[in-house]
Amino acid sequence: MRHLLGIEGLSREEILRLLDTAEAMLEISQREVKRVPTLRGKTIVNLFLEPSTRTRVSFEIAAKRLSADAINLQASGSSLSKKETLADMASNLEAMNVDLLVVRDRTAGVPKMLADRVRIPVVNAGDGAHEHPTQALLDALTLRQSFGSLEGRVVAIVGDIAHSRVARSDLLVFSALGAEVRVAGPPTMIPPGIEALGVKPYFSLEDALAGADAVVVLRIQQERLEGALFPGEREYAQNWSLTRRTLALAKPEAAVLHPGPINRGVEIASEVADAEPSRILDQVTNGVAVRMAVLYQLTGSEQ
Amino acid sequence: MRHLLGIEGLSREEILRLLDTAEAMLEISQREVKRVPTLRGKTIVNLFLEPSTRTRVSFEIAAKRLSADAINLQASGSSLSKKETLADMASNLEAMNVDLLVVRDRTAGVPKMLADRVRIPVVNAGDGAHEHPTQALLDALTLRQSFGSLEGRVVAIVGDIAHSRVARSDLLVFSALGAEVRVAGPPTMIPPGIEALGVKPYFSLEDALAGADAVVVLRIQQERLEGALFPGEREYAQNWSLTRRTLALAKPEAAVLHPGPINRGVEIASEVADAEPSRILDQVTNGVAVRMAVLYQLTGSEQ
Amino acid sequence: MRHLLGIEGLSREEILRLLDTAEAMLEISQREVKRVPTLRGKTIVNLFLEPSTRTRVSFEIAAKRLSADAINLQASGSSLSKKETLADMASNLEAMNVDLLVVRDRTAGVPKMLADRVRIPVVNAGDGAHEHPTQALLDALTLRQSFGSLEGRVVAIVGDIAHSRVARSDLLVFSALGAEVRVAGPPTMIPPGIEALGVKPYFSLEDALAGADAVVVLRIQQERLEGALFPGEREYAQNWSLTRRTLALAKPEAAVLHPGPINRGVEIASEVADAEPSRILDQVTNGVAVRMAVLYQLTGSEQ
Repeated sequence: MRHLLGIEGLSREEILRLLDTAEAMLEISQREVKRVPTLRGKTIVNLFLEPSTRTRVSFEIAAKRLSADAINLQASGSSLSKKETLADMASNLEAMNVDLLVVRDRTAGVPKMLADRVRIPVVNAGDGAHEHPTQALLDALTLRQSFGSLEGRVVAIVGDIAHSRVARSDLLVFSALGAEVRVAGPPTMIPPGIEALGVKPYFSLEDALAGADAVVVLRIQQERLEGALFPGEREYAQNWSLTRRTLALAKPEAAVLHPGPINRGVEIASEVADAEPSRILDQVTNGVAVRMAVLYQLTGSEQ
Repeated sequence: MRHLLGIEGLSREEILRLLDTAEAMLEISQREVKRVPTLRGKTIVNLFLEPSTRTRVSFEIAAKRLSADAINLQASGSSLSKKETLADMASNLEAMNVDLLVVRDRTAGVPKMLADRVRIPVVNAGDGAHEHPTQALLDALTLRQSFGSLEGRVVAIVGDIAHSRVARSDLLVFSALGAEVRVAGPPTMIPPGIEALGVKPYFSLEDALAGADAVVVLRIQQERLEGALFPGEREYAQNWSLTRRTLALAKPEAAVLHPGPINRGVEIASEVADAEPSRILDQVTNGVAVRMAVLYQLTGSEQ
Repeated sequence: MRHLLGIEGLSREEILRLLDTAEAMLEISQREVKRVPTLRGKTIVNLFLEPSTRTRVSFEIAAKRLSADAINLQASGSSLSKKETLADMASNLEAMNVDLLVVRDRTAGVPKMLADRVRIPVVNAGDGAHEHPTQALLDALTLRQSFGSLEGRVVAIVGDIAHSRVARSDLLVFSALGAEVRVAGPPTMIPPGIEALGVKPYFSLEDALAGADAVVVLRIQQERLEGALFPGEREYAQNWSLTRRTLALAKPEAAVLHPGPINRGVEIASEVADAEPSRILDQVTNGVAVRMAVLYQLTGSEQ
């Protein structure tokens, strides 16, 4: 594994190794002194070309807890908008002996394009509607903590499947670990032919949740709900919001996940988000550990 | 003391302990190597939702001199504008095992709201027109350096008392330490009933300064001077600007303070700001020390 | 040397000492652990008042590899636009015991103005059309690596000489090190009287390149090409773009430099930028080393 561009292309063994490493990293963030010298003297650049706070902070904290130097580069879309300029920036960062690039961009494929250009590892922190692999890994880690293993577990992903990089990465990782994955949402939000990825589409929340071990509720982009093809916010909430009532259809103690930030009262009710069996804050804790594991594996001593 | 949300609610002893700790911290910034390992492995987030440079830099330097990892999160008002989103962000930061949140916001009460939500310490770095406790503590430290003690000293605070969080925090801390506090400004800038806080209102600069040991000149928000209820800039300067002439009414060597950034020629003349007995730059130096003391007391080993 | 405000005023010996120090710094960025304790406990502020990513990142990496604490302060033009406010900010940073200020501004003379105000070292990271000394030093280091010495070498600088701080600093440093400097561009881009600086103007790319040992291609500000006095982009590229064909007029293996970011197909063709003998990425590597040398010499133990 030279880069982490997506879950696609990762073997089951590579995924499990990342999760095992993340498990070990979790303990560091519990210590009185939350800092180990592992990546001392390494330079990690967070190249965030799409605004983000939580993911950037999570990567920055992960780098610092491993004693790496973290540099933030949150370019406005304009200055680095052309692909060529962006590729030149990546080459420049490589020439500055940067050890790893974390890249987020509105456009699918940008992390791959940069990885093709430079010899240093590139981590995809979310690219358009393509993939968000560290989110999927932290989701998998969270489910593994709940169930021991994902083998044979039924996981429903609910929301705008067609436009969600989280959905795409999640279904790949959950499938790779042996789970049965259901995707659910209004017909305009389910891509045609999704069955080819080995998942089963549902057009009713109730059906999708029936007997599920876990539910991943996706964040609804509110701009999307204004489009002609999509339901309005109220209609969406009525049919697709995870509430205590709809959650009751899943198995008792079914895990509830959400990549955040949550729209309370739209895709999820506060009564579900803030109480057991919500694992939303565990996901955030696991996010730092997963990113520590990724930075470590891609830049650590074994390289 | 679990949080520092305001001067209100602090006992005289807690204030003195913070000032004594700050006094000890001052020496660290004078060293050749301005860094002690005290907060190594602690993660401190500066959550600045109102634009600020000086206060953020002061907190960031304070954290770094104590070897903490400082993460800046300067969200635009828009993305974190809703209270619920902000509270969720704070919960997320807590889930990332952040050790302390420094919060600045345009809205009074936001730091308190977040402190009620999370178990980690919250420091108010200025919230609306409510409080700015670290500014008040550094002002108190500066005056204590001048006088040994504030007991019985006469301190005049001049400017837009009604809309100033600095005025509010200052008068609370000066009163708690035994000073006699006068507040002075145009009638529209003095809140009715201010006497209830144990301070005396003045509607003439000359009266307020007569025999004062110290003057705190507040920054005038120039937007405010365009409002119908307030004097124009020229009129304000004519009646309320601290000049060498008006300063002569105070005691000889009266200390002159200003929270900065200063509007030269509006609330204060350059001849006063840049010469003895101005303590304006001492305030800035003390600001780093006070913030080091606050970070240390709230996250240090005794917790 | 107390500040680095420009190449103007530096002696040949001071320049060589900086280049020698930079040469020694290069090795640090090649190590497994790219961090030395040299500036531990020093606080360096990057005060960037003109948007920039590459130069800021280069300075930030330089500071961190020397273990200094780097603070970024990228104020919007508005809040710090007035000279007085900016000078007060610098005084405040000095009062916070900051050890060195790196300053970039749209206006020529701002770093000098701040250096006159504070007692701490100021490094000019580019001020208007005045100077960009660290860029010139890294260019000189790159040429010295190619040739051993610049003595007697012919260097052509091509582009908008009149409005370029890089051109100005470059011709000063190359001349000081004994090179013969040619400047070339359309007549409206060559300042009248440039000969007084000891350089020779050329109004044809072919003439300027004939027999040159090195070419520095300047970035063209595309806004400029829309002005009435200047050629359009296509016309500029036709007459002034460095292509394999025009480069063939220079000496074999002539070094090609560009301060970046490059406009491919405008001032330089990709075939030249991305292949030998382009030294563009070496410049970027050298940039970190030169900045480490500058930070070290201005704040290091000999102070």
